[in-house]
Amino acid sequence: MSSTAVVTVLGGGSFGTVIANMVAEKGHRVRLWVRDAQAAETINREHENKRYVPGYRLAPELVATADMQYALEGAEIVFVSVPSSAVRDVIKQARPWLGSGQMLVSTTKGIEAGTFFLMSEVISQELPDARIGVLSGPNLAKEVARRELTGTVIASSDEGLRDAIQGLLHSAYFRVYASTDTFGVELGGTLKNIYAIAAGMSAAFGMGENTKSMLLTRSLAEMSRFAVSMGANPLTFLGLAGVGDLIVTCMSPLSRNYRVGYALGQGKTLQEAVEALGEVAEGVNTLRQVRAKAAEKDVYMPLVDGLYQVVFNGAPVQEVAKRMMLNQQASDVEFVLPRS
Amino acid sequence: MSSTAVVTVLGGGSFGTVIANMVAEKGHRVRLWVRDAQAAETINREHENKRYVPGYRLAPELVATADMQYALEGAEIVFVSVPSSAVRDVIKQARPWLGSGQMLVSTTKGIEAGTFFLMSEVISQELPDARIGVLSGPNLAKEVARRELTGTVIASSDEGLRDAIQGLLHSAYFRVYASTDTFGVELGGTLKNIYAIAAGMSAAFGMGENTKSMLLTRSLAEMSRFAVSMGANPLTFLGLAGVGDLIVTCMSPLSRNYRVGYALGQGKTLQEAVEALGEVAEGVNTLRQVRAKAAEKDVYMPLVDGLYQVVFNGAPVQEVAKRMMLNQQASDVEFVLPRS
Repeated sequence: MSSTAVVTVLGGGSFGTVIANMVAEKGHRVRLWVRDAQAAETINREHENKRYVPGYRLAPELVATADMQYALEGAEIVFVSVPSSAVRDVIKQARPWLGSGQMLVSTTKGIEAGTFFLMSEVISQELPDARIGVLSGPNLAKEVARRELTGTVIASSDEGLRDAIQGLLHSAYFRVYASTDTFGVELGGTLKNIYAIAAGMSAAFGMGENTKSMLLTRSLAEMSRFAVSMGANPLTFLGLAGVGDLIVTCMSPLSRNYRVGYALGQGKTLQEAVEALGEVAEGVNTLRQVRAKAAEKDVYMPLVDGLYQVVFNGAPVQEVAKRMMLNQQASDVEFVLPRS
Repeated sequence: MSSTAVVTVLGGGSFGTVIANMVAEKGHRVRLWVRDAQAAETINREHENKRYVPGYRLAPELVATADMQYALEGAEIVFVSVPSSAVRDVIKQARPWLGSGQMLVSTTKGIEAGTFFLMSEVISQELPDARIGVLSGPNLAKEVARRELTGTVIASSDEGLRDAIQGLLHSAYFRVYASTDTFGVELGGTLKNIYAIAAGMSAAFGMGENTKSMLLTRSLAEMSRFAVSMGANPLTFLGLAGVGDLIVTCMSPLSRNYRVGYALGQGKTLQEAVEALGEVAEGVNTLRQVRAKAAEKDVYMPLVDGLYQVVFNGAPVQEVAKRMMLNQQASDVEFVLPRS
């Protein structure tokens, strides 16, 4: 990577905008690709992305554009920050201007509907020669925008990519840790949304610290069990992209997943919860997909099963919780003492 | 273990009392040993331990006593719940009435001053033939007393002991997970107190969710690094006795360690903080002991070093934090990608 690189961010949501601006503030030339030409023009005129990060001043080195060719020409590093449902299409659209030496870093969390592919897998299918990484961690975009001390993880099997991203993003308030476990890091960012629903439910019941902590820790046990069945390293869940991200998501009462869980905990149905929210929370879709995959692979996921009964079959939360407490007592960490 | 066992709890603090009563409520005969005969008498008359767990009704099967012989006669299982500074003396005092078939379970956290022995080590030195276990987890005694859903960990290399304790303590609100990593579980309960000081400091600065989560996750990285150097399994820190207990301790603004950190974060000196609190917080002693041990064993502990500078040398918190952010960026989980 040269000392002033050309960097492209695909997607002008809150996180894409913040990444683009952090890089621009370090003096690199940054192009922020957004779907809508008028939105690009407004961002360039106001030096602000009012819709997603109001009040956040954008550096002059950041240029928004809806022109994919212009966005990607000469780019050494490309961040992919569009919604998960759009990743495959956007990569197809970008492919003519992507060469084999470029680095692509996904910041998008989620599982492709129908295929169960993670975003790094989708990208590598569309661009078999690309150098690919994943960025994930406890990173509320609005807090990064306020320059609060933040840590994140770059995961890739490509050491040069990890080093380049650590150098590109590091600042006095943003610190990038490295990992080789791309799947583990990506699954951490994806699965947490399921457990944020459970955290919201427990909050609706006014549960205490012991209960919240047990729920979070058993969520972590289940996430890592599932991730290991997909080829990840359980120790990744000790890190920022595992427990770090889970904590932020489960403790933030503003997240959509948490709010769906809270509504369900108050006795609302899924339909009522979704109507009140105005949209379906990501965790609800992830829950359905992960439950099916766990059944297929025969992975034991009592929290996912219990949540599924509550969310989709209207089972009462308290009965499901009581049944879980009376289950056979298991190992604390099955990678230390295998479950019997 | 027979269906109605004789169980002894040494130590009538809040956790000892709650353990004793949970067992008594399941119909076992329980003796709660306390140092002071008058305190024992008051507990038996009032069926309440007003000093440590006010308002918590004690079962008739629980008998308090200051007579060590009476307390231990016929006991199959003995819980050790006295302060860490008293464990060796109390075990010496109890030794004449302890046989080799008995199970001893320590619920006490801490490191013996001068020797750096953990409580399970102290007990096994005094009773080389005893069957020994450790109980630890995110267990605020007052929440267990309110029968809030709680999970804990029994750690022992002795499978029969683990099974016995799981059976003895399991109820509709209390769930016991098992582990073979005694040192890891014990170190989790001990080291967390250091990081609660850091959590208090960060709260004094009004730090956001990203920062709190980074601090907690990096604390976990450091705890597990140190524990591994002492022979523990890093994966234990994924569990209730690791991250579970750390979360509860670092999120509870009432803990003494947190309050010392908060006062230091407001610019007070250690002496002022301790004076305001009326006593030295456990984490302050643990910090000093662990820093010395880490230096001796050459374990990299930047948070412990930084905290030591703030707590004992009056270094400004913000400067120490800034220096840490600008350190060389490392691996997220060094057990996945070794630190370079």
